[in-house]
Amino acid sequence: MDSQVTGEARVGEAQVASALTEAVAASFAGAADPRTREVLEAVVRHAHALVRELRPTQQEWQQAVEYLTAVGQACDDTRQEFVLLSDVLGISSLVEAVNGDPDGTAGTVLGPFHMTDSPVRALGDSIDQVGTGTPCVVTGRVTGPGGTPVPGASVDVWQCDEHGFYDVQQPDLQPPGNGRGLFTADEQGRFRFRTVVPSHYPIPTDGPVGRLLRASHRHSFRPAHVHLIAAAPGFRTLTTHLFVADSPYLDSDAVFAVKPGLVVDFAEVDDPEQAARHGVSAPFRQADFDVRLVPDERAKVEQ
Amino acid sequence: MDSQVTGEARVGEAQVASALTEAVAASFAGAADPRTREVLEAVVRHAHALVRELRPTQQEWQQAVEYLTAVGQACDDTRQEFVLLSDVLGISSLVEAVNGDPDGTAGTVLGPFHMTDSPVRALGDSIDQVGTGTPCVVTGRVTGPGGTPVPGASVDVWQCDEHGFYDVQQPDLQPPGNGRGLFTADEQGRFRFRTVVPSHYPIPTDGPVGRLLRASHRHSFRPAHVHLIAAAPGFRTLTTHLFVADSPYLDSDAVFAVKPGLVVDFAEVDDPEQAARHGVSAPFRQADFDVRLVPDERAKVEQ
Repeated sequence: MDSQVTGEARVGEAQVASALTEAVAASFAGAADPRTREVLEAVVRHAHALVRELRPTQQEWQQAVEYLTAVGQACDDTRQEFVLLSDVLGISSLVEAVNGDPDGTAGTVLGPFHMTDSPVRALGDSIDQVGTGTPCVVTGRVTGPGGTPVPGASVDVWQCDEHGFYDVQQPDLQPPGNGRGLFTADEQGRFRFRTVVPSHYPIPTDGPVGRLLRASHRHSFRPAHVHLIAAAPGFRTLTTHLFVADSPYLDSDAVFAVKPGLVVDFAEVDDPEQAARHGVSAPFRQADFDVRLVPDERAKVEQ
Repeated sequence: MDSQVTGEARVGEAQVASALTEAVAASFAGAADPRTREVLEAVVRHAHALVRELRPTQQEWQQAVEYLTAVGQACDDTRQEFVLLSDVLGISSLVEAVNGDPDGTAGTVLGPFHMTDSPVRALGDSIDQVGTGTPCVVTGRVTGPGGTPVPGASVDVWQCDEHGFYDVQQPDLQPPGNGRGLFTADEQGRFRFRTVVPSHYPIPTDGPVGRLLRASHRHSFRPAHVHLIAAAPGFRTLTTHLFVADSPYLDSDAVFAVKPGLVVDFAEVDDPEQAARHGVSAPFRQADFDVRLVPDERAKVEQ
């Protein structure tokens, strides 16, 4: 008898809840912008579906409110905890995926460290101004459809040092712009620069996102990588990483950004002649990474 | 040909996205607390489903991050903008619904104004210390299953004044505790107090939630109501409202808290004898609201 009452009660409750969801979704029907309406209606439907599935207690709802508030209040000029939360929930990576084009190089997350303009550098220059890491040469080519070169493409790169820190994290130890460079590809779309092999590193864990990782026994590490943004007129701008193929955490990136096509061999070269040609000392590491861009026009046709 | 390519690309992308969702959900498998794991996995699945449905651009994702950050940063000791956001999205009301019991009086949202302890008052006392509104008498009875009285139940009430403001919003115009009272029901579970008829009022619109309402051409008003929390040992505590039956906005409460059983007639009484009995002047308004509580034991059995 009791379980029958409960069953009927649940059905009644489900009807009330469903009517509520419809009423809330309908309340956004008057939005001036159709996309605003579409977004808010979808947010309501998915958020309500989550509540109906989890049936949170009032106390759990209160905890969720307090958690989101703490995330917002952890943000300041140099820290974006909501981006970090989006990253560790795989949302940033998914947004990249739905915006990607399979005909081009895979994109991946921007991350929080592209906060300063990269210094303009000439092809072949070093982005490393400290000189204590393992020397490394990165070469590559920016192409369009069919592998045709994209001359004059801009290639913006940034990375952490051999200890896993970006310049902005260590203003006392690294000169500003260390590990960063804005290059212009040559007539064959080629780019090249010198650097040091970046290290894997932990994302910041002293805030609410760190608490979430600890509560779920997840580690906070990202595999070693070089960030890269390639852009040229007429093409969709590509934001991606080169991952170092022998780095730890390639199979468990804390922000789910690794994609197979982005893992690049940083091969050791112990040849003084090649080292001299690149302006580094032997042994050094060498990585080659070609970037395939997608024309802007195609993106427009698809929409 | 182009549309075929696009179709295949979408299928490939869907597989990548689905694998990503599974990987992120699986990353929470190690959570020490099973409920934490359940909650985080569900959050990931529903958030990813939202992204796959909406296919937000990078710019839209950025706007979402900035919006949530602004909501978090609008919170302080006296303002909870995430509660307000949860309210206008109908989430607070849905959480109430999934925690409700159809055998008892319907609950509804707590709201942000239960921020101070209500002053202890004797049955029949007035909670109005200003004297400029329409006099009103509220009576009722707290019962359990089968309508049996719950003697000594506590009845905590709070409301805005006839202009739509709570005491905490107008520290210079209203004495602290105005519009608030903590009563103890008598041996028959009865309670009664004097007050003024509350007004409808707008929720705060000077923050991010106000921007959302304006963007969707939604008004910000709540219908007139008296908040009530009824509690007694052995029963589930009930948080609810009495809505004034002739108030505007009953069919479009900005926070979706209205439920049919909670709309109460505040009838006008123009009888000096009755007025004298209640200690008010005629004409006055009178509302009667019975509260049915649900035993705590039943809640335990259901879980």
